[in-house]
Amino acid sequence: VRAVQCSFCGTAAFYRREYEGVSLCQKCFKRSIEDKVRFTISKHKMLSPRDHIAVAVSGGKDSLSLLSILSKLKTKFPLSKLTAITIDEGIQGYRDEAISLAKATAESLNIEHRIFSFRELFQVTLDKIVKRQTKLAPCSYCGVLRRRALEKAARTIGAGKIASGHNLDDEVQTALLNILHGGVERLVRTGPVLVDPEQRFIPRVKPLCGLYEREIALYGYLTGIEFQRTPCPHRNRALRNDVRDVLNALEEKHPGLKYTAYSSKLKLSDLLGDRKIHLNSCKICGEWTGRDLCEVCKILVQNQKLECLPREA
Amino acid sequence: VRAVQCSFCGTAAFYRREYEGVSLCQKCFKRSIEDKVRFTISKHKMLSPRDHIAVAVSGGKDSLSLLSILSKLKTKFPLSKLTAITIDEGIQGYRDEAISLAKATAESLNIEHRIFSFRELFQVTLDKIVKRQTKLAPCSYCGVLRRRALEKAARTIGAGKIASGHNLDDEVQTALLNILHGGVERLVRTGPVLVDPEQRFIPRVKPLCGLYEREIALYGYLTGIEFQRTPCPHRNRALRNDVRDVLNALEEKHPGLKYTAYSSKLKLSDLLGDRKIHLNSCKICGEWTGRDLCEVCKILVQNQKLECLPREA
Repeated sequence: VRAVQCSFCGTAAFYRREYEGVSLCQKCFKRSIEDKVRFTISKHKMLSPRDHIAVAVSGGKDSLSLLSILSKLKTKFPLSKLTAITIDEGIQGYRDEAISLAKATAESLNIEHRIFSFRELFQVTLDKIVKRQTKLAPCSYCGVLRRRALEKAARTIGAGKIASGHNLDDEVQTALLNILHGGVERLVRTGPVLVDPEQRFIPRVKPLCGLYEREIALYGYLTGIEFQRTPCPHRNRALRNDVRDVLNALEEKHPGLKYTAYSSKLKLSDLLGDRKIHLNSCKICGEWTGRDLCEVCKILVQNQKLECLPREA
Repeated sequence: VRAVQCSFCGTAAFYRREYEGVSLCQKCFKRSIEDKVRFTISKHKMLSPRDHIAVAVSGGKDSLSLLSILSKLKTKFPLSKLTAITIDEGIQGYRDEAISLAKATAESLNIEHRIFSFRELFQVTLDKIVKRQTKLAPCSYCGVLRRRALEKAARTIGAGKIASGHNLDDEVQTALLNILHGGVERLVRTGPVLVDPEQRFIPRVKPLCGLYEREIALYGYLTGIEFQRTPCPHRNRALRNDVRDVLNALEEKHPGLKYTAYSSKLKLSDLLGDRKIHLNSCKICGEWTGRDLCEVCKILVQNQKLECLPREA
C-alpha cells in the first residue's frame, strides 16, 4: 500500500479535504489555512495596513487561532497593531481558565492582552443576570452585553476595527437558525464585514468566516495552541446544536455543501441590501438604539428591578 | 387509563398535533385540514368566485387531496369551475397507474378530467429524453416541460388559474435546497401565489402550502382517496431526500419548526421583492423567456440533435 501524497508537495498526506478533492501534508495544510484567511481579508477588504485591531479572544480554538494567524500576517504590515481583548462575563468555573489560556497565547505571540469585565462595565456578572432573568436563554443576555463590552473595550484602547473568530460553520448555522427559528431580517446585518455607514459603531470583521470549524480545530492542534475545551455552563443551544449536527451530516454526504450554503447566505444578504436604519440615543446610556432604551439598558434595568424584590424563600 | 379527548369536541382523539398542542378526533382533524386550506386561499387571495381552475393532478396524495378539498369548497361557489388536468410525461410503468387513479377520483367527484401528454405537446416522451440527455437530473428536464405542459393545458381548456398540490414540506425543502445547493435568486419567484403582473402567464396557486405533508397523507387516508404510492422510476433526488429527513428529524424535536421555516421563507421572498423581469419571445416557439431560446426549446433542440446521432453500439 502506498501512502497518500500531499496534492501540493508530494510528501505524505495526513488530511483529506473532501470539498476541494485534495490531500494535504501538515505543512501545506497549515499554509492553506493561513492563505484562506489572507484571501478572505483581502476579498472583503477587511483590514488596512495601519489598522489597530482589537481581536476578540474568548480562549476557544477559533479566537486563539485567529490571534495566531493575524500575528503572522502582521509581520508584513509593520504599521498595524493588534490588541487581544478578552471579555470576562463573570461565569464562575469557566471564564478563569479561558482568560489564562488567552493571556498565555497573547504573551507567547508578544501581543498586548486586555481584560474587560461585565462587573466593571455593567456592575453585574452574567451569573447574577441569568439567575434573576430567565425569560430568554442565557446566550441572549450574554450576546447583547458582550457586543457592547467589545465595542467599549475597542473604544477604550483606541482600536479602529474589531476582529472576531466566527467561522463558516457559525455563520451557516446562524443563517439557518434565522430561517428555521424566525428572524430573517437578521440576515441583512450579518456579513463578513459590518460597517456602519454613519460610523456610529466600530467596524467588525470575521477573518475566519471562510473556514470550516473542524479545520480550525485541526489548525489549532497542529500549531500547538492550547485552547479551552470545557463548554460554557450556561450554554443551552438545543436548536443550534441540532442544526450543527444536521449540517455536519449533510456535509459528510455532500462535501462542499457548507461552502455553497455560505455563498447563498452572502448572496441573500447582498440581495436584501443595506437598509439604512434610523437610530436614536438610548435615554439611559446614550448609545445608539432603534428604540427608546438600548437592549443593554433594558437588561440592566430589569436586573435592578429584580434585585430589589424580596427573595422568595 | 382514560383515552385522550379531542381538544375540540371531547370525543376520543386519534391524532396529536404537536405543533399546535392539540389532540383531534377524525372528524375534527378532517375539518381542520379543510379549514386550513380555506384560510390559505383567502389569506393569499388565491381564488375568486368565478374562477375556472385547472387543478394539476398527478395522482399522488397531495394533488388528489387538493382536488377533493377544492370540490368541497366549490359547493359554496356555484359560478366557479374545476377541471382536473393530468400531464402524461410518458414514463412507462408509472404514469398509467397514476392516470387511472386521477381519473377515478375526478369521476367520483364529478369533475371533468383531461389528460395532456408530452408526446402530443412536444412530440417526445420523458423516457426518451432522459435516455438521451443525462447532463441534468431527470427531474430538471421534467420540471421544465411539465410547467409548460400545464400552461398549455390550462390555456387550451380556458382556465384562468392553475392550482397545484405543493405542500409546506415541499416549499420548505425547496427553499432550503435553494440555500444549501445554491440558487437563492429562485426564492423570489416561489410564493403561494405566482402572478405575472404583465399577464404573460396564467396565475398559479398552491392552496396546500400551509399543510404538513404527513397531515395531507393522513387526510387522504381518512377520506378514502386512493393515491399512487410507487415513486417515479426517474426520481433521484439525493439531496432533497436528505433535506426532507433532516427537516422531519428537526420537526420531531422542535414541533412547529417547519411552520416557522415556511414563514421565514415567505418573509424572505417578500423582502427580496418582486423584481420585474424583462422577457423576450423564444425564437422557436414564441413563448416568453429571459434568453433567446426558452428552456423547453433548448431541451427539445438538444433532443433532436441527439436523436440524429448514430447510436453507439
